[in-house]
Amino acid sequence: MSVLALCGGVGGAKLAFGLAAEAADLTIAVNTGDDFEHLGLTVCPDIDTVLYTLSDLADRERGWGLAGETWGFMAALARLGGETWFQLGDHDLATHVERTRRLAAGDSLSAVTAHLARALGLKPGIVPMSDQPVRTHLLTDTGELAFQPYFVRERCAPVVRRVRYQGAATAAPSPGFAAALARPDLTAIVICPSNPYLSIDPILAVPGVREALQHAAAPIVAVSPIVAGQALKGPAAKLMAELGVEPGVEAVARHYAGLIDGLVVDTADAGAVPTIEALGVRALAVPSVMRSDDDRRRLARDALAFAATLSQSRARAG
Amino acid sequence: MSVLALCGGVGGAKLAFGLAAEAADLTIAVNTGDDFEHLGLTVCPDIDTVLYTLSDLADRERGWGLAGETWGFMAALARLGGETWFQLGDHDLATHVERTRRLAAGDSLSAVTAHLARALGLKPGIVPMSDQPVRTHLLTDTGELAFQPYFVRERCAPVVRRVRYQGAATAAPSPGFAAALARPDLTAIVICPSNPYLSIDPILAVPGVREALQHAAAPIVAVSPIVAGQALKGPAAKLMAELGVEPGVEAVARHYAGLIDGLVVDTADAGAVPTIEALGVRALAVPSVMRSDDDRRRLARDALAFAATLSQSRARAG
Repeated sequence: MSVLALCGGVGGAKLAFGLAAEAADLTIAVNTGDDFEHLGLTVCPDIDTVLYTLSDLADRERGWGLAGETWGFMAALARLGGETWFQLGDHDLATHVERTRRLAAGDSLSAVTAHLARALGLKPGIVPMSDQPVRTHLLTDTGELAFQPYFVRERCAPVVRRVRYQGAATAAPSPGFAAALARPDLTAIVICPSNPYLSIDPILAVPGVREALQHAAAPIVAVSPIVAGQALKGPAAKLMAELGVEPGVEAVARHYAGLIDGLVVDTADAGAVPTIEALGVRALAVPSVMRSDDDRRRLARDALAFAATLSQSRARAG
Repeated sequence: MSVLALCGGVGGAKLAFGLAAEAADLTIAVNTGDDFEHLGLTVCPDIDTVLYTLSDLADRERGWGLAGETWGFMAALARLGGETWFQLGDHDLATHVERTRRLAAGDSLSAVTAHLARALGLKPGIVPMSDQPVRTHLLTDTGELAFQPYFVRERCAPVVRRVRYQGAATAAPSPGFAAALARPDLTAIVICPSNPYLSIDPILAVPGVREALQHAAAPIVAVSPIVAGQALKGPAAKLMAELGVEPGVEAVARHYAGLIDGLVVDTADAGAVPTIEALGVRALAVPSVMRSDDDRRRLARDALAFAATLSQSRARAG
């Protein structure tokens, strides 16, 4: 079974963990719209979350960063009057320093990411959506903000009116992502339960990605990041409301309609299945909240089995 | 009392600590020949040792770096297959990251150093010998080595035939150093007990420094880093032997003869005073091993009092 997953940070990475356990051949294309330069270092929060989650080094309680992290660097930086709004743990910092050093030496983000994944003993292909910088910007009531200042420094408080993916127009899918998109033997394409606007749309904004997905032979299944009108993590529901969309799985279905074949929703949203299917999107309601490794694997199995049932209809439509 | 000190790392920084306590107006010009780019960061080991020693943040037992240091970054970097021969503590790393960020933003090394000193609450002027990069290289039996690979990675094992100060010819004294050198009201110039070849000669190699010292009205006193034929710290004695010089205070006197007015040696070397004075260098034998803050302050007082006795003779010679 060969699977391509599109993935953002925390929630998406949990499903990617499950997919890695269930699919022998997995490529994970990761959002880089959250990437930023901080203290002279290139920080790729979603790639790192995927790396740390798949290698089981992630801190499960805090919900971000590495387990057993220490904060000596931040304390010393504060003493020197440095910028401390973005927390960089001592262990996490090694990832950013090593990445920045390799990028400065001329390696592509793909090559650096592949190196880090190899060093951590990971088998799936983990590829950035693009090797060119794409930066998610939020046009808010108080002005334009880059992603991390909006997300971390302002704690998502400003009201968002529009989302822009700076640099997307001139970016290209990374070689590994392009290759996966073009594979005729793909069994399924899974859009992980990540924020549609902030984690998945930047990937879809890279020229050629949406078209490649539309022409893919494999069925495309998304897993809703919204459960019972709430985002399990992050600002997805708040953002939907600000963008004039009623937060809910119906909105997720509408957002992806025309692109996906099926949407996996939580059993809490089983009542929305008819509405979703009326949009031309098949729907499956299963337990989708991932608290344990078992949850991650079961949801991955459910999504892949669901995709298998959709491959016939996609073949007919294609 | 206004004092200018020339200083390298550990031993020199201890005397600088003493001088800071004894002289109301102190400028410390620090060797930058050991500086290097590592993992994309600009590391200035001697400046940092001076900053950490004067702010009493230095680890006194280990002899380098910060007290209470942690090593999460190094452990994580090793896991990622990064370069680990140069130990960077988590707290220490903040200095290098903040310095590198400010240099990249266009600040001079002088400005960055002044910022760091201010952040640590230090009163003395701490200035790099130059804002242009000067890099100490060792021509050894096994090839040419930059300072840190020689000093840290190879643990000073290669036999040194010659020392080069790359970039020195086109460097200039930093503005703060030049200003201190030109001050007519200097009471004393102190060459701290640092390695003559690796810590002080790079400073003297910056064009104009040696001439300014020769024309300075203030007496110049050096404190020997060699006690009873041994370096208290580092490779000074080994290096002297390799360069064909009998390690001892006489060799230190010969090295600085024509530049300094007086040399402070340890009481263990009191017997060498006549030989030193025969070279035209006045000599003072006092306890010079600095184990406590009191030792540091007493040696500083001794060196400054010694300089005061020499100012008459220098005035006559000038």
